[in-house]
Amino acid sequence: MTTRFRASVYRVAASAPDDISGVEALIADGLDPHSIVAVLGKTEGNGCVNDFTRGFATATFEGLFARLGVEGVSIVMSGGTEGALSPHWTIFAREQVDAPAIFAPSRRSLAIGVSRTADLLPEHLGRKEQVDLVAQGVRAAMASAGIDDPADVHFVQIKCPLLTSAKVAQAQARGKRTVIADTLKSMGYSRGASALGVAVALGELGMDDVEDTDICRTLDLYSARASTSAGVELADHEIIVLGMSEQWTGPFAMTHTVMWDAMDAPSVRAAWSALPLGRLAAVLAKAEPDPRGTVRGRRHIMLDDSDISGTRHARAFVGGVLAGVFGETELYVSGGAEHQGPPGGGPVAIIVEREEWA
Amino acid sequence: MTTRFRASVYRVAASAPDDISGVEALIADGLDPHSIVAVLGKTEGNGCVNDFTRGFATATFEGLFARLGVEGVSIVMSGGTEGALSPHWTIFAREQVDAPAIFAPSRRSLAIGVSRTADLLPEHLGRKEQVDLVAQGVRAAMASAGIDDPADVHFVQIKCPLLTSAKVAQAQARGKRTVIADTLKSMGYSRGASALGVAVALGELGMDDVEDTDICRTLDLYSARASTSAGVELADHEIIVLGMSEQWTGPFAMTHTVMWDAMDAPSVRAAWSALPLGRLAAVLAKAEPDPRGTVRGRRHIMLDDSDISGTRHARAFVGGVLAGVFGETELYVSGGAEHQGPPGGGPVAIIVEREEWA
Amino acid sequence: MTTRFRASVYRVAASAPDDISGVEALIADGLDPHSIVAVLGKTEGNGCVNDFTRGFATATFEGLFARLGVEGVSIVMSGGTEGALSPHWTIFAREQVDAPAIFAPSRRSLAIGVSRTADLLPEHLGRKEQVDLVAQGVRAAMASAGIDDPADVHFVQIKCPLLTSAKVAQAQARGKRTVIADTLKSMGYSRGASALGVAVALGELGMDDVEDTDICRTLDLYSARASTSAGVELADHEIIVLGMSEQWTGPFAMTHTVMWDAMDAPSVRAAWSALPLGRLAAVLAKAEPDPRGTVRGRRHIMLDDSDISGTRHARAFVGGVLAGVFGETELYVSGGAEHQGPPGGGPVAIIVEREEWA
Amino acid sequence: MTTRFRASVYRVAASAPDDISGVEALIADGLDPHSIVAVLGKTEGNGCVNDFTRGFATATFEGLFARLGVEGVSIVMSGGTEGALSPHWTIFAREQVDAPAIFAPSRRSLAIGVSRTADLLPEHLGRKEQVDLVAQGVRAAMASAGIDDPADVHFVQIKCPLLTSAKVAQAQARGKRTVIADTLKSMGYSRGASALGVAVALGELGMDDVEDTDICRTLDLYSARASTSAGVELADHEIIVLGMSEQWTGPFAMTHTVMWDAMDAPSVRAAWSALPLGRLAAVLAKAEPDPRGTVRGRRHIMLDDSDISGTRHARAFVGGVLAGVFGETELYVSGGAEHQGPPGGGPVAIIVEREEWA
Repeated sequence: MTTRFRASVYRVAASAPDDISGVEALIADGLDPHSIVAVLGKTEGNGCVNDFTRGFATATFEGLFARLGVEGVSIVMSGGTEGALSPHWTIFAREQVDAPAIFAPSRRSLAIGVSRTADLLPEHLGRKEQVDLVAQGVRAAMASAGIDDPADVHFVQIKCPLLTSAKVAQAQARGKRTVIADTLKSMGYSRGASALGVAVALGELGMDDVEDTDICRTLDLYSARASTSAGVELADHEIIVLGMSEQWTGPFAMTHTVMWDAMDAPSVRAAWSALPLGRLAAVLAKAEPDPRGTVRGRRHIMLDDSDISGTRHARAFVGGVLAGVFGETELYVSGGAEHQGPPGGGPVAIIVEREEWA
Repeated sequence: MTTRFRASVYRVAASAPDDISGVEALIADGLDPHSIVAVLGKTEGNGCVNDFTRGFATATFEGLFARLGVEGVSIVMSGGTEGALSPHWTIFAREQVDAPAIFAPSRRSLAIGVSRTADLLPEHLGRKEQVDLVAQGVRAAMASAGIDDPADVHFVQIKCPLLTSAKVAQAQARGKRTVIADTLKSMGYSRGASALGVAVALGELGMDDVEDTDICRTLDLYSARASTSAGVELADHEIIVLGMSEQWTGPFAMTHTVMWDAMDAPSVRAAWSALPLGRLAAVLAKAEPDPRGTVRGRRHIMLDDSDISGTRHARAFVGGVLAGVFGETELYVSGGAEHQGPPGGGPVAIIVEREEWA
Repeated sequence: MTTRFRASVYRVAASAPDDISGVEALIADGLDPHSIVAVLGKTEGNGCVNDFTRGFATATFEGLFARLGVEGVSIVMSGGTEGALSPHWTIFAREQVDAPAIFAPSRRSLAIGVSRTADLLPEHLGRKEQVDLVAQGVRAAMASAGIDDPADVHFVQIKCPLLTSAKVAQAQARGKRTVIADTLKSMGYSRGASALGVAVALGELGMDDVEDTDICRTLDLYSARASTSAGVELADHEIIVLGMSEQWTGPFAMTHTVMWDAMDAPSVRAAWSALPLGRLAAVLAKAEPDPRGTVRGRRHIMLDDSDISGTRHARAFVGGVLAGVFGETELYVSGGAEHQGPPGGGPVAIIVEREEWA
Repeated sequence: MTTRFRASVYRVAASAPDDISGVEALIADGLDPHSIVAVLGKTEGNGCVNDFTRGFATATFEGLFARLGVEGVSIVMSGGTEGALSPHWTIFAREQVDAPAIFAPSRRSLAIGVSRTADLLPEHLGRKEQVDLVAQGVRAAMASAGIDDPADVHFVQIKCPLLTSAKVAQAQARGKRTVIADTLKSMGYSRGASALGVAVALGELGMDDVEDTDICRTLDLYSARASTSAGVELADHEIIVLGMSEQWTGPFAMTHTVMWDAMDAPSVRAAWSALPLGRLAAVLAKAEPDPRGTVRGRRHIMLDDSDISGTRHARAFVGGVLAGVFGETELYVSGGAEHQGPPGGGPVAIIVEREEWA
């Protein structure tokens, strides 16, 4: 026998941004809170600048972990459960278990790693400095997951900062100019630069392939495995790497695919059917309004609607596409997919708990 | 040879609520404008009380038909193309053609009938008077379509009125009380009562099965074939009946099904695959936030979101489900499905143009 | 010398719903946290059903007071700082001071009292049970303030519960029917019944003057001094009574008036000029869309706008009227004024810190 | 006797974007439709990209004028009647009358001039080409009004184009790059460049004072008399100049002022009281969220609210400030005040019909 890591994934319903009763019940039922490495939450705010449901949820989890004496959990909240999407928490845990010393390659299992970067200066947001900072963070999270080969990485979730009016003013007061003054748009720049950082870390792009002016402009530069969310509540980056590794054990298996546009259900069905049979454990996806203003040649209005942010439109619609495939609504569909998959499309990661596992 | 009716269906993209250039091009290409019996439009407004895109589109088509000397076209505009749904017009036309006098039952084809009711008093909206008025109108439209058996009806589209602050005040000035004072909510009452009128006309319910207090309350009373939209621009009801009839000829075939909830893609796939092979000509569907606040046991936030109307959430999401099935975004997804299919679900009608037709 | 109470009022800017740094600074500068009896906050949410900024702010203050060992503070958060209104906290404190045993009646000063009611059952919301429960609570708060004569009360702030989809379902599961199923509308019923409870307690109405069917219908029944806000975060009522009393000392003086409609600046200017000279310490006001659909005979669109809640429109507009009078934007303008002042108008309370006080 | 022009101003309520019944009634009562030179409308849309109420109103008026055989009327529709602002049309008419050949300078009266520019290429929007094009247009409108001295101009209303997704794509297809890709933001650039064109025409700035990079950035460059609105329905600029001239006669008199920030009621009161006594005939004002994120040092949330456009917040609030001054809600408050008055403030023009006029 030898000691190995084993990952677990739990989805828990949330009745409000501060409802963590389901997580507390899991812990009461035996989940060791010290095994929790990450919480991915979908909260019911607008997912844009003034979405305080993310901060409220984060503060609530921070309070829980402080009471339990648990440190270092990566808490990533993504706002927006449009359409029938359901607010929920996805808990990722890892623990050390005894496992047979010899095993077949087919015994690969879900692996999890996390990291945080240094704080980002407002004037570096949406520029190469952010790309580089994130690439370093992703490499650190891969090391934490025990994954050497970037090909084994199936999803990288990053929570990145955004600009507020105050941050823009602070930078100006120091004589610096931010990439943009519009706070809502700043979320896109931050998500885009972070995604390019993932692409660099995973070898999908080289650092020299990216210039400042490419960010949020040259959209055929992208990562097929990045998922980035911007939040008002942090100044650095929280990074979670998910993949498959022979060094991990347990029933959870994972893959990823790319939706080529907002209604690309066939790609998702194909990826799902390639996984072993089992209970669906989590779906992690990105959605964005196609920046060309059309989907398969037909005009959409997501970018011309001044009443509803395009990111909200996109989450609702892609949420419908995915719910039609999976028959579930506790799906992590995160808005804003700049440089995350092709324009108008986005990465989708699927985790199942294998039926047969011994 | 004998003379029979033949239906045609055209979908035309709209770049704005007053863009009818595609329809004008069809006419220039040979479509006889006098053969047009109905226009179903999806416009890009919010689909709620202050959605003037419907009225703008209606006025634009009225101007066109007036210039062409065409009268009696039923113009039904449904607001809201959330998510990647694409604004478009669906044109229904019928013309008389020569056909073989003897034909097999398999030669049934799409049939179209229309009617309008008298004006509805504001205080009758959402009450049995409206149910009865609509039932009469549906029967008139069936007669217009040459359909005797209600089982041959696959879709009944109704445009019904709503209450505005002014109409509520007018009723009060006459000493009458409207079913509700809230203008947005009045749309639901009008849609609900109209749908029950369809159910009565099609024999799905008896007139005695419905009381005033059932409307928008007893949601297991419903029609599987009604689609009703409320609009600020009319005081009566515009009714379009679509079905299959041996008395009609042509390549278009139609069926319907019911989505049992907002993500019931399998029912839609099954209905589509039961139709003959052919090009998709139109999809007509209803969507609503599940009034129980959940979808398959998971909470949705559509009814608790004070920033976006629940009908907009529902159209975006169900639009995604259907686009994932059909791979198209020019889908007529209309919000508000009170008494139209089961709670949280709704009717879906599919029209194809058969590949083989001789 | 004798011992008397002395009230203090502080307005503190908030940079986010969880920014209480300004209050912590006050405490660091000498404010005894045990002297704080109430916090009235304006947070930057939508002020409607899914406004979690109120709960976030409340949780943040609760954490502060728990850390400081302070109990019993009434925390009332009102969402919505539309237009140029500025998010802020108003802190009401009282302490015992030595004062001359003999004093002139002109030496009346601001007095503060608080109370909480029992929890309200969902099916009692918006009905006479709620009116009665609140009236009892107001009397308790007056006793807490040492005010005997209702004429000395200038403002009664009440935080009341609302219905969520879950609460409606819970009541139905017990065989009870709530006054309404619509969650956003339930806020109006709760605010209205609470305001009538104030009117009963202050003798503006008798308990027999109010029937269930009057609530949110017979709008000429109202209190000129009630201000009620509904929040998702509580099930009971938090009540704060503000008035003038000879039993209190200190520089703060208060009065109230009624705006007869949404643009009644003259009434506000008159009330302000009747107060002694001094620094403006707080303005507490209510705003609502005129339910008749007009203001001075001209149509407004607040009740027909399905993109923005009418309460948000009203706060922005009345906020502008008041800011034009006072030249400040840290104004407590709370939306939803059912039975609080005449239809379309609302109470306004003004507190100044007198220049001359010895 | 000699022949001179005489201006008239009418405000007419609108019950919907296509309700011109009040204008038809004016004409039935004797207003010569050929005397109408301009219509300024406030319609009840969101005033942003997808506000089709402007186009609907414009089409309705165009239909009216076509039926009447009237050509060349400048139709300027500004969307957004937030708060209690009331949708209405302001009709400006001019006719030739006989007047005494000799008159005192005090006999100056309201003068009106109009012009249209050539179409603007999408890539010129928000750049110096637009500034120059507008400056030429303003000079043409002044000539049309018979005003030589720029100091006699009190208001210049311009309707300017905006970018849509389609226009951005068209420019890109020609190898051109628009100033911005975001359609909502493009409205600001167009309004800003147009306002600078007014400033250049009126001598407030020289053409050399403005660089491309100043537009929407160097906000201390502004006109105190410009009011610009962007609309999806035009590609050129419609320009209306209003001022006072000895060459005109009639009871209408006009002045202007600048609100220094969003709550600067005193400046407005002062300007109004400096006009001769008379009935208020029109108020024309601009409103914008202060780009610094504060008003008199206090934070506002208008630029951080992703649910409601900042322009809607600003119109509601400034509408309240002005309604508190004038006691009326049929005020032309137009959103987006880039380079129109100081940052966060804006021009206000007031027209009265003098009581004494002989």
